[in-house]
Amino acid sequence: MGNTQNTFIFVSLGISLISFLFAAWLYRWVQSMPSDNKRIAEVGKLIRDGSSTFLRKEYVALAKFVCVAALLILVFLPTPIWRGDITKNIFMALAYVAGTVFSGIAGVIGIRVATVANMKTAEAAQKGIKPSFLTGFRGGAVMGMAVVGSSLLGIALLSLLTDDTTVLLGFSFGASSLALFAKAGGGIFTKTADISADLVGKVELGIPEDDPRNPAVIADNVGDNVGDVAGMGADLFDSNVASMSAALVLAGELGGNNAAMVFCYAASGLLASIIGVFMARMGKGSPTTALNNSTYITTGIFAVITAIATAVFGFEWRIWGASMIGLAIGVIIGIASDYFTDDSKKPVHNAAKASESGPALTILSGVSYGFMSVLPSLVGIGVSALAAYKLCEPIGEGYAMFGIAMAAVGMLSIVGMIISNDAYGPIVDNARGLAEMGNLGDEVLEITDKLDSAGNTVKAITKGFAIGAAGLTVIALLGAFMSEVNVAARAYGYPEIDSFDIMNPVVFFGLLIGAAVPATFSAMLILGVDRNAQRMVAEIHRQFNTIKGLKEGKPGVVPEYDKCIEIATHGALKELIPAGLVAILITLAVGFIGGVEAIGGYLCGNIVAGLLLALFMSNAGGLWDNSKKYIESGHHGGKGSEAHKAAVVGDTVGDPFKDTAGPSINTQITVVSLIASLAATLFLSLSIF
Amino acid sequence: MGNTQNTFIFVSLGISLISFLFAAWLYRWVQSMPSDNKRIAEVGKLIRDGSSTFLRKEYVALAKFVCVAALLILVFLPTPIWRGDITKNIFMALAYVAGTVFSGIAGVIGIRVATVANMKTAEAAQKGIKPSFLTGFRGGAVMGMAVVGSSLLGIALLSLLTDDTTVLLGFSFGASSLALFAKAGGGIFTKTADISADLVGKVELGIPEDDPRNPAVIADNVGDNVGDVAGMGADLFDSNVASMSAALVLAGELGGNNAAMVFCYAASGLLASIIGVFMARMGKGSPTTALNNSTYITTGIFAVITAIATAVFGFEWRIWGASMIGLAIGVIIGIASDYFTDDSKKPVHNAAKASESGPALTILSGVSYGFMSVLPSLVGIGVSALAAYKLCEPIGEGYAMFGIAMAAVGMLSIVGMIISNDAYGPIVDNARGLAEMGNLGDEVLEITDKLDSAGNTVKAITKGFAIGAAGLTVIALLGAFMSEVNVAARAYGYPEIDSFDIMNPVVFFGLLIGAAVPATFSAMLILGVDRNAQRMVAEIHRQFNTIKGLKEGKPGVVPEYDKCIEIATHGALKELIPAGLVAILITLAVGFIGGVEAIGGYLCGNIVAGLLLALFMSNAGGLWDNSKKYIESGHHGGKGSEAHKAAVVGDTVGDPFKDTAGPSINTQITVVSLIASLAATLFLSLSIF
Repeated sequence: MGNTQNTFIFVSLGISLISFLFAAWLYRWVQSMPSDNKRIAEVGKLIRDGSSTFLRKEYVALAKFVCVAALLILVFLPTPIWRGDITKNIFMALAYVAGTVFSGIAGVIGIRVATVANMKTAEAAQKGIKPSFLTGFRGGAVMGMAVVGSSLLGIALLSLLTDDTTVLLGFSFGASSLALFAKAGGGIFTKTADISADLVGKVELGIPEDDPRNPAVIADNVGDNVGDVAGMGADLFDSNVASMSAALVLAGELGGNNAAMVFCYAASGLLASIIGVFMARMGKGSPTTALNNSTYITTGIFAVITAIATAVFGFEWRIWGASMIGLAIGVIIGIASDYFTDDSKKPVHNAAKASESGPALTILSGVSYGFMSVLPSLVGIGVSALAAYKLCEPIGEGYAMFGIAMAAVGMLSIVGMIISNDAYGPIVDNARGLAEMGNLGDEVLEITDKLDSAGNTVKAITKGFAIGAAGLTVIALLGAFMSEVNVAARAYGYPEIDSFDIMNPVVFFGLLIGAAVPATFSAMLILGVDRNAQRMVAEIHRQFNTIKGLKEGKPGVVPEYDKCIEIATHGALKELIPAGLVAILITLAVGFIGGVEAIGGYLCGNIVAGLLLALFMSNAGGLWDNSKKYIESGHHGGKGSEAHKAAVVGDTVGDPFKDTAGPSINTQITVVSLIASLAATLFLSLSIF
Repeated sequence: MGNTQNTFIFVSLGISLISFLFAAWLYRWVQSMPSDNKRIAEVGKLIRDGSSTFLRKEYVALAKFVCVAALLILVFLPTPIWRGDITKNIFMALAYVAGTVFSGIAGVIGIRVATVANMKTAEAAQKGIKPSFLTGFRGGAVMGMAVVGSSLLGIALLSLLTDDTTVLLGFSFGASSLALFAKAGGGIFTKTADISADLVGKVELGIPEDDPRNPAVIADNVGDNVGDVAGMGADLFDSNVASMSAALVLAGELGGNNAAMVFCYAASGLLASIIGVFMARMGKGSPTTALNNSTYITTGIFAVITAIATAVFGFEWRIWGASMIGLAIGVIIGIASDYFTDDSKKPVHNAAKASESGPALTILSGVSYGFMSVLPSLVGIGVSALAAYKLCEPIGEGYAMFGIAMAAVGMLSIVGMIISNDAYGPIVDNARGLAEMGNLGDEVLEITDKLDSAGNTVKAITKGFAIGAAGLTVIALLGAFMSEVNVAARAYGYPEIDSFDIMNPVVFFGLLIGAAVPATFSAMLILGVDRNAQRMVAEIHRQFNTIKGLKEGKPGVVPEYDKCIEIATHGALKELIPAGLVAILITLAVGFIGGVEAIGGYLCGNIVAGLLLALFMSNAGGLWDNSKKYIESGHHGGKGSEAHKAAVVGDTVGDPFKDTAGPSINTQITVVSLIASLAATLFLSLSIF
């Protein structure tokens, strides 16, 4: 069986190398597109430089954090060096560092291409929508290929080097650390810039979006790249690695050809994504149809390849079924999110109508629909977990939880395509801004608007996948945690644990505290955006007041864009760290007070409350955004009406909800779950209760 | 041992009768206060009639609901009549009806006295703050005595009539049904009126609060009574009955003198509250000090009486300790809530400052602090549950959960005093309005303002008690649920259950869905307020447009107050019913799909997410309210400034948060927990998994 496993590890290595080659080809293709507009090149360079600056500073801050964390891991994890085997600790620390590095490289690649593709997409729009679409999409696909390729590569290499699946959790923890910085830090950056640019530009001075006079306009465009491209890429790198690691930890316990199956499915997913990306074209339909079609094609290819592999290699059909359930539920959650955020559906219309009576009712209706949107998604995650479990239970002991893990792997199998679709969004958004600043004319703006709107629509489905996958992954991580606890218990002579009983007050204690953490974490991030935006607003005011001719748009007068970028960068990192530390320290406190049972409850409470708040904030934010756009398209008085003003308030509230706090909760949950698994031995031996 | 139990049942009956006599004495005392202002009598009568109208309509709607529910109980609960003993079902149905009737009577008494006390308090203010305070306080105390007296009376009578503790859950379910109508319906009523009156009056026309020209002004005052007096009374009646029932169900399993102890403690709490209320006076300090002092005195008396009783009757000291833990944590949660909502603390100041940059930042900072406020309270509830459990575990099997139940009983022991303080709030609030409308002069207004502000401050601590008590009670109800399941399992030959394991996907499935219910329920209530407010705003516009001279305040021109009351009443009941049904139907669906294990998880998810959202909404709402008041008192530009406008938006969003959805979640949780316990046998025998 070990042979099959090794075969599939090499297959995985091979396919991940293909994905890198494919990414390189896509990159060159994008770069080969013509571009000659000087103004676009100028602004594009500013965005590119700003993004690099943020990334560099972020990685420097991260490097310090990683050094400290790696040192702590070296000393304490999986067991304190004075009690266990030091080589394990060295491996763990190296795997951790590798996790941050692999994810970081994928982020750099993504940003590089995104900040080229935005210019190329803008200029390609002069030739028509089809080439412009393809440029944007292929730019995004570079990120998709880089992320999935490097995550699979990392896991496969580690599995070749060591049999110890716990090391994979270390790699996954590294990926989570980076995601925390990239997603939460990038989220604070992007919303700081966005809110400040809007508050001063649109609200106070009444100048349009993307107006080059606004000192925050470049920071805003940089934000799209660092938040939505790099941040989202790191987030999905994290989820993807976590789902594979959890599945491999559980497969390690089960033995047999199960680990081989995990690699086979992951590699098949990447292959399916490569084919899907390669075939993607805009036909007669809209760009939305093109994006969705390529997702469905990828899904179909994945189902067929894995079915064939399951038949040929004698994998369990029930587990294949579980991963199909995962895929299906991802789509269903996406559709549910879509209902609550799409501007052709009732919730957005009602929120827009409520805006006629002022901002308070805009907020109340958005909060209400956001709360309601939680039900279908949680039911979907609950049902899929239950179905996967029941489907795989008959195979034998331990297979039920493995089924859930494979449902998560199934859901994330097409993540290469998901990221391509997702990264497409900020690229065309940027392209729109560049077209505006480069004066490419109304026809081009119309095309980029269409492309942009497709990006927003598709986002709902991809977000559904991301949250659903996170939900299933963390359930699997809970399983991995228990498995880690029992490995440690056997090794050190503690009693094994086979359940976390809600009626046990230690578990319940953990549950209550775990539930409070995502709320606290979100609050700290939102307050961070708030404080940071205040700083930037002050800076924008300063520039308008001291730089002569700026407000009037005198030719040759340029604002100091880099000052705004600096404030956003510095503030993002400063505000992020306390939030991350609070989540980590509370986890450790609960573990050392209540032990592994409290942590079991804690993770459960964290997952449930985390999903609840993430869904609420993402969907409420999306709804406010779209109801503002709906009003702008001429309903309820259109732009400038009282309803529009109210809708702008809703959108501003929704911005940090949907782009800072909401999506960062996923990462917070994974970070906490992984810390718990890694520190299982410590909690087992050192807790009070 | 049965003898001790009966002794304490008779003691409880005796003390509850004393509380009724005391309430009657207080009522007469309040009525004997002089009143001769004609205008106040006129407006007071309008408020009184409006409140009675709402109560009558609510009870008619409730009666229909109760008939259907009683019939269903008769047929199905605790076991379907074709399988079990029909006398049990008859008892259960009767107990259910009794639960609604006892709570309903307490509500009527409370409203009656509150709508007299408001006038008396206003006029007493002409003689000074001390008599005015005492009138308001004693008016509220009538409600406190009536609620606690009738809850203890009902439980004691039922315990005399039958040994079957399950019947108590039926009584408790009746109380919850009424609370659902009173709290959620009253909450929709009061916020409909409040928001509409503000939107048209303050925002559109710029006329002051409580201006008699506003057609919604009486409805607004009626709302204070039906939402805050009757609703809050029903809510605490519900919590009090639920905590006693849960404790008695668990005590029934344990045997010994434990049931006697529950009655002894409950009776001691009522006695302590009677003494505390009787002794309450305003001394040299502020009214806030007076209210808090009487709470602390009551707490002290309770501790002493129960210590003596524990020594004399040989109860377990550890359980006495558990109830003291409950009391202490109630105070701590109150202080935490106070920090986030008090206008002398940082959160309110920061939210007020953020309002300078517009309503979006007001909302964002309120949401953030609301999220943060969840942590200390959940930690408090978790720690107290853990401490009570660990303290009582050594006594023997089953005592740990009983300890948690007794912590809840301890926390609620002084509920008579809590209600008195709480009902004081709306009475003095009304008195302020009456003083304004009766032109009693600035000096009187100053006094009533002081009394009103004390009511708001004390509310934070009483709310902490209410939410903390609900938290512990529902944990105890979870214990009661398991106990009910096992009674049924033994009777019908199913395997007994001794845990609800998070790792069991059926439990986890229930957990996820349970967590989504409070969000959905809140959303439906808030949307209900929204829709209802739109109807009322239209009616107010109609009156201002069609009644000549109304806008100008022509003497003799009176708006049609009753039209607004009618809209609020009708809408409240119409909007409430779907929300209640959704919660109930989802519970039944989960039970019939996943059986008792899914329900175990479901209740747990419901409790955790419910507490999270209830705390978030109550505290965020309180914070917005107070930061508006803080600005009005002259900070950040004071009344009429941009900051004030933004703060008004925050306050309007916060209104249904803190007075409709937030506090109704407590009731939703209890209703769902009781249904689960009552239908345990059905779920055990009829579920799919």
